[in-house]
Parts: sequence; structure tokens; C-alpha cells
Amino acid sequence: MARPTPLSGFPEWLPEGRIVEQHVLDVLRRTFELHGFAGIETRAVEPLDQLLRKGETSKEVYVLRRLQEDPDAPPERGGQLGLHFDLTVPFARYVLENAGHLAFPFRRYQIQKVWRGERPQDGRFREFVQADIDVVGAGALPYHVEVELPLVIAEALGELQAIGVPPVRILVNNRKVAEGFYRGLGLDDVEGVLRSIDKLDKIGPDAVAALLVAETGASTEQAAACLELAAISGSDATVVERVRALADVHGAGHALLDAGLEELGALVRAAAERAPGVVVADLKIARGLDYYTGSVYETVLVGHEQLGSICSGGRYDTLASDGANSYPGVGLSIGVSRLVSRLLSAGLVRATRSVPSAVLVAVNAEDQRHRSDAVAATLRARGIPVEVAPAAAKFGKQIRHADRRGIPFVWFPADGADALGQVKDIRSGDQVEADPQVWAPPAEDRWPRVVATTP
Amino acid sequence: MARPTPLSGFPEWLPEGRIVEQHVLDVLRRTFELHGFAGIETRAVEPLDQLLRKGETSKEVYVLRRLQEDPDAPPERGGQLGLHFDLTVPFARYVLENAGHLAFPFRRYQIQKVWRGERPQDGRFREFVQADIDVVGAGALPYHVEVELPLVIAEALGELQAIGVPPVRILVNNRKVAEGFYRGLGLDDVEGVLRSIDKLDKIGPDAVAALLVAETGASTEQAAACLELAAISGSDATVVERVRALADVHGAGHALLDAGLEELGALVRAAAERAPGVVVADLKIARGLDYYTGSVYETVLVGHEQLGSICSGGRYDTLASDGANSYPGVGLSIGVSRLVSRLLSAGLVRATRSVPSAVLVAVNAEDQRHRSDAVAATLRARGIPVEVAPAAAKFGKQIRHADRRGIPFVWFPADGADALGQVKDIRSGDQVEADPQVWAPPAEDRWPRVVATTP
Repeated sequence: MARPTPLSGFPEWLPEGRIVEQHVLDVLRRTFELHGFAGIETRAVEPLDQLLRKGETSKEVYVLRRLQEDPDAPPERGGQLGLHFDLTVPFARYVLENAGHLAFPFRRYQIQKVWRGERPQDGRFREFVQADIDVVGAGALPYHVEVELPLVIAEALGELQAIGVPPVRILVNNRKVAEGFYRGLGLDDVEGVLRSIDKLDKIGPDAVAALLVAETGASTEQAAACLELAAISGSDATVVERVRALADVHGAGHALLDAGLEELGALVRAAAERAPGVVVADLKIARGLDYYTGSVYETVLVGHEQLGSICSGGRYDTLASDGANSYPGVGLSIGVSRLVSRLLSAGLVRATRSVPSAVLVAVNAEDQRHRSDAVAATLRARGIPVEVAPAAAKFGKQIRHADRRGIPFVWFPADGADALGQVKDIRSGDQVEADPQVWAPPAEDRWPRVVATTP
Repeated sequence: MARPTPLSGFPEWLPEGRIVEQHVLDVLRRTFELHGFAGIETRAVEPLDQLLRKGETSKEVYVLRRLQEDPDAPPERGGQLGLHFDLTVPFARYVLENAGHLAFPFRRYQIQKVWRGERPQDGRFREFVQADIDVVGAGALPYHVEVELPLVIAEALGELQAIGVPPVRILVNNRKVAEGFYRGLGLDDVEGVLRSIDKLDKIGPDAVAALLVAETGASTEQAAACLELAAISGSDATVVERVRALADVHGAGHALLDAGLEELGALVRAAAERAPGVVVADLKIARGLDYYTGSVYETVLVGHEQLGSICSGGRYDTLASDGANSYPGVGLSIGVSRLVSRLLSAGLVRATRSVPSAVLVAVNAEDQRHRSDAVAATLRARGIPVEVAPAAAKFGKQIRHADRRGIPFVWFPADGADALGQVKDIRSGDQVEADPQVWAPPAEDRWPRVVATTP
């Protein structure tokens, strides 16, 4: 078998990179659980008709077939299956399927791989890990959840600054503000306007103005007002006043605008208090607004804005509906693979070693291996990760075995039945007599740590 | 959208079941890491030609296609993709692909979903979680790894007895023993004999004897000898003596038999010392022996033997080969979904609650929500999982909200600016004044626990 080459778009990490990814996942999980989110996992597949309910994503779906499928067999119950391309569609299905067993509002996190069958380009992944939080109500869900969730994300990503993750900025907008403003202006093709505004970063304001005129029937003046709104941003309550002043200038008053500004103002005020400097109102954030109905969020790494949003989401009034009930929700999704890939490729973080073991127990001779095994078992029973040398080679070679893996300590068992041994810190060369019932590595050496790469 | 129904063969758990599964995964991960295994994850897909190298599994593969694939486009690099049906094929590919970056012997664990496109039946899953450990050498791998790995599994599964998982019995055999014995008897169709012996539990000894005569050219006497060998089992070194005595009776001496018996004896002796009563030599264990070359393992839950093996594996001399090097290994794979499914369906274990939160902070009035948020933040900063009530309903309703989720404590913030509040254990009704900077729930209530269901 020739040496295989990586598949483009399907990232994999070496063991040290996986320690970094696992640490990120552990921090996210812990933060979500501290906030009372219950973890769930859904199957990787959904019926194709469910995946295609939003037609525009259809090109991204991987469809499954069984290799030995009998073409004459009746179609299976559930129909054709595809791999999920996000965690929202499966979560909506899970909520409907299990509604009778869940307590609402239901707070869940979900950390899983998703797949998109698109051509990989510009660092886009075909397989990647998402970490989602959502709160879903039955029938109703209060606005304060829209304030709470970005603050949970700010806390989760903020915890990662300890390992060198740059600070994050969460950009927020509110669909009601945009829709109310456009309708107040007299523009009724709200989705058309949003689609054009969404292109602002890519094609610039002049081209967007031309688009607005050509495609939404806006006058030059209306187009200019939309661009003025999109230019407003800030992290304090003056944002609300600036939007209101702009609406007054253009006579664009609307009840929906008032409702949206009240919500946006509440979010900005709460965020300024609880996560100062993290949340910024940015009136140009658009995000597939046909789906969202209130707050929308995007998140950038400060200094790495060109990476795009690493965490997005919003409020949706209908996550799912079974006729009798509809289930409104608020959710955000962290693109973990995109984040970890950047951390590793930019060399921002590293693991202190590539294996869990803090100690390598040397073997004096193969017929003495049971002594080394006994020392290892005693240390492990005390919560210290240990491996035993694979061969009773010369000690120099056994020390190199540890060194290549970054294992900081090598334990040399006593030759006789004595439980005492010698333990060497191979970084400093210090060697001391030690009892496996008593000795422990310094706390910072017990497990591999993920640390910022010092510049 | 009508209420969806589950897809057969794709198990999903409610939040409480997921807590059980997550606990099992956490225990396995911790045990593997204490033994120095590094975690890796591989992509879910492999090129189809790699998945089909062992032709007999071809019917189980799910093949992927992009929904909007252009039939006229040139085939993608890597060819057709399928979902992996185990973690061994992807691990072999990962080792070859990254051999230059790995330190051998390489100890890795891998916990991921796998997929098999077979018709679901008898509780068989189409999607399930496996937890694998393997040690792989470059060129060579010493025998003692074959002793070590089942003992790591015994420890990992033994840790789960604390939550009510039944004790396990690990059944071991050695391919060299079987092959040496058959060859010593004069039977050269070793794989044919093993295939027949593998059916012993299903069709019984008489039918196996007939098969051996019909399909491997064995005489009635040779067939009887094979069945005598398969009937031998035991957990001490007398097993080796019984096999040797049987071989002597039949004049079935062979160098391979001697080598195998030495290995099997060493394994049984070490296991009797380090995991008494867990490992049993069972000479009828066969397991696709065309792949394995030394020890083979199967694991049953004592009292649930009809569930079949929940952890299997063995020694293979060629996990992978790139021409210059071959990579021998020893590995075992735990069927986590099968195990968890049995624990839940048999009601052996339960989680103490269905959400992480130990405390629900009540809300006195919506305009006082910030006070409740502040209490929650203080408790969380001290590592206590907390959620805030979704609405400032009557306290009775807020307490019922906690009760439905199994949240043991409800915190009532003081009405004024005072940081002190009242905290109620809703199980006992006890209520005390408390300071969020100081108060903590009892250690056993801090996080949901997974416990044995008392009979």
C-alpha cells in the first residue's frame, strides 16, 4: 500500500493537535454545563426530504446509499438518507420527536461533526465539528434568552484566552430593526434589501447601492438610507439613539423598528455590564434573515477578522412545528474546526507534550517487567498517567523514548523487591529517590496542558 | 411537519441517557489516558477502495455522493468515498499517512461513531460508537503488549462496575495454538477449520464435526480432536497443560503450538495476578483469524452473555504496510452503543438528574432578573452549575420547574441589594440563608451522577 495522502476538506490532527482540539471541546462543554445546558447527540443522518426543506442548501448534502443495495427492494422507511450539514435540522427533528419527554424551555448543547458536500476551497471544510447551544420553548420563549446566549458564548470563548485564543468580538443586530427601518422607508422587499446589504463587505457600498436600486426598486435616496443604517455600529446605548435619529431624518418610523430597538438596546446594555467590550451592535449584520426573527449574531477573532465568523446564530420563532405547537428558539453555533485549524496553523497554541503520560517507568530487564508494571499501577491508582517502557533497552535509549514524546519523568524501579525507586526529571536532570505510594509530579506536569505559544 | 419517528438502527438517547453514555465515555477516556494512550480522531470517510480491501464487508458500506454532483465532472482525487465501518481501517491509513510524525510504538485510543449499511435486526445498529485502543509498532512489537491491552480493558470496564455495569469476562485464545494444533493433527486448511469451529455456539458440536469432515477433509477422529480442543477453557495455567496433554494424545505436536502455548500461559498467569477472575482462556474463540496472528479476545458481560461480545480484538502482524515498513499491532474495540443501550434498556443505571444544573436561581420579578443573573454568575465562577428561572412566575411554579428536571436546589435572591439569599433543598424542604460567595451544594449533588439502579 502506497503512503496515502490527505483528503482535501477533511481535516485531521496529529496527537498534539488533537490535545488542543480536545481541550477546546472540554472548555466549551464545561462552560455550557455550568450554564445548565444538557448535552445531546443526534444520529449523523436525516431523511433527505428533511435536509432539503431549505432548498438553497441542497447542493451541500452528501447522500448515502448502501453499496449492495438491491435496486428492486422497496424504499426503506424514512426514504433516502443524507448526512446532516448542521446541528439545527437534527435538533429540530429531535425536539419534535421527543417533545413529550423534554421539559421546556429546553436548554441543550450539542458538539458533533457535520458534513457539506461542496468543493473545498479557501480553507472550507467538508467535515467539521460544530458546538451548538440552543434554548427552545414550547409556544413561547422570552426575549431575555437573546441576551443570555451570546453572553454564554462570550464566557466560553473568553475562557480560551488562557491558551492564547485571541479575544472575540460578538457582532449583534436585530431583524426587527432592519425590517422596521426598511418598511418605514417604504421598502417592502425586505429580504431583497437584506440580501444586497449582506454583500457589503464583498462588493462595497457603491455596488450595493446600485444593487438596491436595480433589484429592490429602491430610489437612490432610499438606497443611501439603507447604507447609512448599515454603517452604524457601537457597543453602547448611543447606537439606539443614532438609529432612531436616522429613522427620524428619513421619516422611517415603524412599530417594528421601535420593538427591535428596545431589544437591541437591552442586549447592548446587559452585555456592557456583564462582558464589557465584547458585544458590539453592528447594523450591517444580515445572516439569512428569512430564518431569523429577532437578534442575530456573528463572532470574529480580534486580529483575525478575515477568518470570518467563528460563531453565528440568532433568534428564530419557529425552530420546529408539529401543528399543535411551535417551538421558538435562540441558538449559536461555534465552528470548532475552523477555530482549532487557525490556532494550529498560526502557531498560536501548543500542547506541552504529545501523549498523556507524565511518567515513563523504565524496565531494568524483561524478566523484571512485572516490577515496572507494579510501579505504574500504583501511580495510576493515584491518578497519575503512566506508561511502561516498551523494551528493556539501555537506560539512555529509554530516556530518549520519553524525551521524544515530551514525557517529563522517567522512573527507575529498584532492582530488588524494594518499592522505592529513583525518579528523574529529564528536563533538569534532577534525580531523587521516590516511593510510588507518595511521589507525584508537580500539578502542572500531571496532564498535558495547552498553552499559548509565547512570541 | 408531522411528528417524526425514530430511524431503526440509529440509536439516540434522551438527555438522561446521554448523561449515562457521556459518563461511560469519560471513564473510558480517563482510563486510557492514565495508561498513556493518546487520543486521535479520524475523518468519517475513507476512499471506497480502502474500505473494500477486505471483500467480505463490502455489503456493509455506506457510499457517499454529492446531491448536486455533476455526472460529467472528472472523478475527484481519492475516488468514491464511504463511511468507515470500524476504526481499524482509518487508523491503519492514519498511521501510514503520518508515520514520519508519530513515535513508535504508538499508543492511541479513538472514540468515534462508525456506520454499517446492513439491514437492522436483532438490536443491530447502523450507527454506533466504538472505543478502540491499539498499540502499533514500526517493524516489530513485543508480545507483552498482548498481555497489557486486555488488562487495560479489564480496568476500564471494571471502573464501570461502580455505576452498575455487570462484571466482565475477557475470553482469550491464541491463533498460534489453534493453527499449531490443527497442523500437528495433519489438517492444513486452518481457516476452514476455524470457520467451522466459529459456528460451535450456533449449531452445536455434532454439526460442527460434520462440517469439519465435509469441508476441511478431516477424519472423524481429527474432527473430534478439534472439538476437544475447543472445549478447553479455564483461568489458570492448567489450561496450557490440558492443551499439551491433548496434543500428546493425538500426536499433534508442532513448533507453532509450543510458541502459542507459551504466550497463552504468560497471558493467563499475568492476568490471574493483575485482574483475578477476569481473563479466561477459551480455546473455542476464533474471530476472523485470517486477520489476527496471535492473541484474540472477546468480552462478555457476566449474566448478559447472550448480548454477545462487547469488546473484541487481537494481535495482527500487519496493521498496515507501505513497502518499506510493516506495522504490527494489538488492539481491542469496545462496542459502546451496545453496552449503553443494554444498560439503559435493562434499567441497570440511571442519572441522578437530566440537566447539569445543581441550582435554579428563582426570579422575583422580571425587572429584578439582573439580581438572579448575578447570583448565578457568582456560583458558576465557583464551579457550580446553575440556571436562572425562565420566568418570574409564582415561586411554587419555579420550584416545580426545578423539580421536573431533578435540580435539587432553588435559590431565592434577596429583594434588595443584599447579596445574601435563601437556598432551599427541594427534596427535604430545608431552607437556609446563604451567601453565593460561600455556599456550595454537597459534593455528591454538584454534578449529575450516574448510579446503579438499586433493585
